[in-house]
Amino acid sequence: MKLAILGSGFIARFYADSLVAQRRKDVITMVYSRTEENAKKFARDYNVDGYTTSIKECVNSKDVDAVIIALSNDLHLEAVLESAAAGKHVLCTKPLGRNAKEAMQMLRAVEDAKVMGGYLEDLCYTPKFLKALASIKSGSVGEITWAKSRETHPGPHSDWFWNKEKSGGGAMVDLGCHCVEIARNYIGKNVKPVEVMCWADTRVHPIDAEDNALGWVKYENGAIGQFEVSWSFRGGMDLRDEVMGTEGTIWINNFLRTGFEMITSGKAGSYVAEKAESNSGWLFPVGDETNELGYNHMFTDMFEAIENKREPNENFYDGYVVNAILDAAYASAASKKWEPVQLEEWRGISEKKAAKEVTSYNEDFYLIKEEVLPSGEKKFIIKNKKTGSIEVR
Amino acid sequence: MKLAILGSGFIARFYADSLVAQRRKDVITMVYSRTEENAKKFARDYNVDGYTTSIKECVNSKDVDAVIIALSNDLHLEAVLESAAAGKHVLCTKPLGRNAKEAMQMLRAVEDAKVMGGYLEDLCYTPKFLKALASIKSGSVGEITWAKSRETHPGPHSDWFWNKEKSGGGAMVDLGCHCVEIARNYIGKNVKPVEVMCWADTRVHPIDAEDNALGWVKYENGAIGQFEVSWSFRGGMDLRDEVMGTEGTIWINNFLRTGFEMITSGKAGSYVAEKAESNSGWLFPVGDETNELGYNHMFTDMFEAIENKREPNENFYDGYVVNAILDAAYASAASKKWEPVQLEEWRGISEKKAAKEVTSYNEDFYLIKEEVLPSGEKKFIIKNKKTGSIEVR
Amino acid sequence: MKLAILGSGFIARFYADSLVAQRRKDVITMVYSRTEENAKKFARDYNVDGYTTSIKECVNSKDVDAVIIALSNDLHLEAVLESAAAGKHVLCTKPLGRNAKEAMQMLRAVEDAKVMGGYLEDLCYTPKFLKALASIKSGSVGEITWAKSRETHPGPHSDWFWNKEKSGGGAMVDLGCHCVEIARNYIGKNVKPVEVMCWADTRVHPIDAEDNALGWVKYENGAIGQFEVSWSFRGGMDLRDEVMGTEGTIWINNFLRTGFEMITSGKAGSYVAEKAESNSGWLFPVGDETNELGYNHMFTDMFEAIENKREPNENFYDGYVVNAILDAAYASAASKKWEPVQLEEWRGISEKKAAKEVTSYNEDFYLIKEEVLPSGEKKFIIKNKKTGSIEVR
Amino acid sequence: MKLAILGSGFIARFYADSLVAQRRKDVITMVYSRTEENAKKFARDYNVDGYTTSIKECVNSKDVDAVIIALSNDLHLEAVLESAAAGKHVLCTKPLGRNAKEAMQMLRAVEDAKVMGGYLEDLCYTPKFLKALASIKSGSVGEITWAKSRETHPGPHSDWFWNKEKSGGGAMVDLGCHCVEIARNYIGKNVKPVEVMCWADTRVHPIDAEDNALGWVKYENGAIGQFEVSWSFRGGMDLRDEVMGTEGTIWINNFLRTGFEMITSGKAGSYVAEKAESNSGWLFPVGDETNELGYNHMFTDMFEAIENKREPNENFYDGYVVNAILDAAYASAASKKWEPVQLEEWRGISEKKAAKEVTSYNEDFYLIKEEVLPSGEKKFIIKNKKTGSIEVR
Repeated sequence: MKLAILGSGFIARFYADSLVAQRRKDVITMVYSRTEENAKKFARDYNVDGYTTSIKECVNSKDVDAVIIALSNDLHLEAVLESAAAGKHVLCTKPLGRNAKEAMQMLRAVEDAKVMGGYLEDLCYTPKFLKALASIKSGSVGEITWAKSRETHPGPHSDWFWNKEKSGGGAMVDLGCHCVEIARNYIGKNVKPVEVMCWADTRVHPIDAEDNALGWVKYENGAIGQFEVSWSFRGGMDLRDEVMGTEGTIWINNFLRTGFEMITSGKAGSYVAEKAESNSGWLFPVGDETNELGYNHMFTDMFEAIENKREPNENFYDGYVVNAILDAAYASAASKKWEPVQLEEWRGISEKKAAKEVTSYNEDFYLIKEEVLPSGEKKFIIKNKKTGSIEVR
Repeated sequence: MKLAILGSGFIARFYADSLVAQRRKDVITMVYSRTEENAKKFARDYNVDGYTTSIKECVNSKDVDAVIIALSNDLHLEAVLESAAAGKHVLCTKPLGRNAKEAMQMLRAVEDAKVMGGYLEDLCYTPKFLKALASIKSGSVGEITWAKSRETHPGPHSDWFWNKEKSGGGAMVDLGCHCVEIARNYIGKNVKPVEVMCWADTRVHPIDAEDNALGWVKYENGAIGQFEVSWSFRGGMDLRDEVMGTEGTIWINNFLRTGFEMITSGKAGSYVAEKAESNSGWLFPVGDETNELGYNHMFTDMFEAIENKREPNENFYDGYVVNAILDAAYASAASKKWEPVQLEEWRGISEKKAAKEVTSYNEDFYLIKEEVLPSGEKKFIIKNKKTGSIEVR
Repeated sequence: MKLAILGSGFIARFYADSLVAQRRKDVITMVYSRTEENAKKFARDYNVDGYTTSIKECVNSKDVDAVIIALSNDLHLEAVLESAAAGKHVLCTKPLGRNAKEAMQMLRAVEDAKVMGGYLEDLCYTPKFLKALASIKSGSVGEITWAKSRETHPGPHSDWFWNKEKSGGGAMVDLGCHCVEIARNYIGKNVKPVEVMCWADTRVHPIDAEDNALGWVKYENGAIGQFEVSWSFRGGMDLRDEVMGTEGTIWINNFLRTGFEMITSGKAGSYVAEKAESNSGWLFPVGDETNELGYNHMFTDMFEAIENKREPNENFYDGYVVNAILDAAYASAASKKWEPVQLEEWRGISEKKAAKEVTSYNEDFYLIKEEVLPSGEKKFIIKNKKTGSIEVR
Repeated sequence: MKLAILGSGFIARFYADSLVAQRRKDVITMVYSRTEENAKKFARDYNVDGYTTSIKECVNSKDVDAVIIALSNDLHLEAVLESAAAGKHVLCTKPLGRNAKEAMQMLRAVEDAKVMGGYLEDLCYTPKFLKALASIKSGSVGEITWAKSRETHPGPHSDWFWNKEKSGGGAMVDLGCHCVEIARNYIGKNVKPVEVMCWADTRVHPIDAEDNALGWVKYENGAIGQFEVSWSFRGGMDLRDEVMGTEGTIWINNFLRTGFEMITSGKAGSYVAEKAESNSGWLFPVGDETNELGYNHMFTDMFEAIENKREPNENFYDGYVVNAILDAAYASAASKKWEPVQLEEWRGISEKKAAKEVTSYNEDFYLIKEEVLPSGEKKFIIKNKKTGSIEVR
């Protein structure tokens, strides 16, 4: 697979690291950047043959099968439209649009052009996430009632993130897009997101956009997807998921506590770990960041999807749903009310919340809880089906 | 200190375990229970001289200096009124009332009778909590912007909890009262809680009250206190706090991961840990539950407060504030809107949110972020004080 | 219980902290120190009525029921002999002697004087240790085959530790005495320690004694007690136990990872945690050090033992066995061979290693291992009872 | 790179999983197994074109550039000799030989044939190991004084492991080979291993070989490499490294605690994690086992070494050194003495232990330790350069 990469910044380098990792079949043949200097440097660092400062030229290169968009949010729409016009498959980084309207234009563009639109949501491809999702699908934790995802760090590396016009918002659109899609996967992509409650505030940095936000996404089956995001967290990058189901619980820590602990006096002064706040004292490096953050499995899925003419796990429709949920979140932060998720088109099933299944103790009573006392005896807390009175047996 | 204990159930036994732990000076001289059988058994188990089935008789015993209330929520008011009438100091378990109205009656009763009203909020006395609070007060993590407390387990042991009339609600009033007061301590008791947003639902058990709830408490200085509670969590008792400040972060795990890990085939069949879901496979016991859950430090503070005629760390006014916040949470769960915290009386300071302190890069620019690149270079993301444009240096 | 404390240094203060914690019944009435200044300061800090620079005067005070020895190792013998001569119960810090010969003299002294000799081995009283030991005794992890204890830190606080004459050795006698007795408890105090292999070296500090040592203690039933000690560990104080049994495993972390994690920029500059290497970056405080390190439960056991005229969990005979094992360890480090543990007197049972119990697969085969394959099939690896050949079924 | 694989069992499947992971360039073209049925099944599962029951035929296939040996230990020598005779590069699983004599024959064979001999020591390629090693080489933890590696589990899957003739030993040769080479890397491959002390015993299984072993490898610079291995550990697979250096500490957990925690009631009954003891209760799956266990980075290094005509990180000489160390360990377990490591040929440097660098306090004193007291004061423990007396300043 011959690839063009649009962008040469932080995320473009993570993508490139993944694409040259572990003797991959796929090769980057073109790189676009706004400045020739950056394009050149990237081409040199990753052995890329061609570079350019024109998106159009880049995506129309004959040596390109698929385009990878690693640009600031304000350029996604243009880049997708150009790629689709050139008849190339297009893989776009997160968030898809700055809002659902932009995302829908991109979705229409790739579907009309009959090219694949892959949504580069790497955190839905981390090895832990993939295994957790498989466990959930196999029923190991029962029905999901609540799924939380948290991403917090001290703030992004590139300046455009901090500019609301370019990024479409602050910490919520930047980090919340991950959290929303992670929880949506756990709860089930077929389950419709209905409404959103959000708090957002600018607490620490001198910016217009929010640097902290919290939100709840309510799904049609009653499940709650919760997100916690911050650009003012101290301590590195905190990437955690928690899932509660009727038969079990899952806790995932993707970054700060993964089984690698180190303390150093710092005398050697060397670089130790990405986004660590210091290079002395206790540090918690991640073994293989590219793999742990999902990039390898993401690109493998994307390219195999293209070759096998199937949809990837994360596609432009998913990106659109995420943007629609975030639009509702911003509306809620402003109105201080639950705001409906506005979906022009719903491709999941519309399953009304089923009557809850309730366990009976016997003909006359429901079972609330069964206890084993320290003495070994069993105790049953039960509820009279007719009178509703609660008793102990 | 000679003590009467009202109640002989689960929580009464935790209290008694603490009161006989580590060669304490204090002694339980009377126990009240609704049934003589339970009162007798408790008296036998803990070497208590007297027992009775009359609250009045119990609190008026000459051999009693202070009364400890370990009864179901619907009996707190009566027990406090009787104790105050008898001129005895009174220590009441959490929540103080089923609602703020009841709590205010109790507060007035002890203050009118000039006896001490101690609020038995054990989780604000765990050794980890006390050390974290001391660190926060010393400034180690800067200004607190967000404090979360989470308590989830598979549901309470006693039947009255499940009865909304007796308990005043479900998981929120039962567990949320802990979480609310924990976050309030971290943020600062002098800071006024302003409004509350809450989601609550009955997801798993056949009961009328909520078995799951989430909430945000907004404080006058902009800080958010978050709570997560559940009666349908699988995996034991999850008791965790997270605090974010401008200069640091604190994570506390009080129960499921405290440095004690054990796997057993279960062949011996013995009891291993409280609220563990099983007695085989991986188990995570707590070394000294009574101490880790705060009971020892709580009673020490209470009795020393009485002896030194000072207020304890947690008093009836604190209990009243917690009830007022929970009232607002229940109102919000119903109205789906942020609801104001209605405080008849505010004893903290009313500090209006200060203008945020912003760091300058130089005369013309604010500093948004300083980065150390892998190359070692420094990068500054800055904002023009006049135009608001964002640049990189 | 009225107490005299001999010593006013680091460990004396830990003892005193425990003795004034949580409204204890017991009171320190006298303190001895070599220098009047230190004795005075200690008396002032802990509200002790009397102080002296004479051991004899201290232990003979009428206001003293029991003597607590918190002195450097070279003074234990004298202090025990004086206390026994005064007819006072005596509690001596670890190690009991600088060697088994000294320990035996102390054991004889208290037994001849018919006073209690309590061995202040606090790490055999930590809440986690006590619960683990109870689990082991209940059979939860089967027969113990291997027990490891590790104590490492950057070196002791007081100068006399570094002086081989005063302390009796280096890191091994200082820290190894804990580890040896911990493993001995797990394996069973009735099981005879037979021989010891030890490596010891002076790797980092300019001292004569060893600053690092490793050892294996072989018990009569084949179990191995392993110790790892260091005075040159970076990262605080590492206190961990690991136990392997035929039915389970136990892992205990007493200090560096107990569920309290904190990161701070250090701007506030305040003291955060004992033996932490710094006061900024990631820190791992212990909630209630005195309790977590076993001091509270230790003194409760000691005083109740005196009152009830029973032996405490850890007595002078235990201290003697530990010294005998350490003597063998020093001999082994010198001879580079396994050295026998020389016990003048063995009070446990002498159980010869039983013939190992072997599970049969059927009449002709032993069962080596049963496997469940990913396919769900079972596989049996078996051994022919006659020919010894290994097969798969 | 076209590959033949010899073997179709457990380890062969791990290798194949790695070789088809993440769109690799390399392809398996031939598989050998003793039984046609197994060879066929493997070929079908991994899309391999050819299969055979003849090693000679397999390695001589024209469609093969390199041979991967994933056979039982007794067949390594034959397979290497055949591959070398065929002029093919050869990658052999661990341990290289059953003993150093076999390993040396293999080393000579590949060197004489001028083909590459890669030693498939996957645990020296785990992402955490690679990052830790890089940190150590950069000086972050100073000089290594002690490195420990531990591998324990309930026993191997295949029957031949349990047969001492085929495997060359028990848990020590099977698992100890990993641990020895891990510690050797941390300490430095140029540093000569000098002597070994080992304890080994058959504690649980009805076999002739050891199912538990402990060992210390002493290096010329005084560093100690420690190993702990067991085939009777309960709780899954415990894979941990600990490294102590003069400037820092590293702790790595490769398997049982990697940031993925899950509890399930087990009702769904599905397969959750490899070598987990059960599929209910608390489980600790690894996200991406193939990557976490080092297979991906190992093969990438091996094939790039072949293409670039350089030595891989782990080669046949390393395998030989490991075997020589294990030979000394078996000798020590029998003689109960430290046994010398017999190396026919030493390719590292022979650096005599340097005089220890000692920090001076001033002209007259060495510095033993600098303390910051809780009061903030500094205390210095020092040693007189002439008299050796220890003092405090």
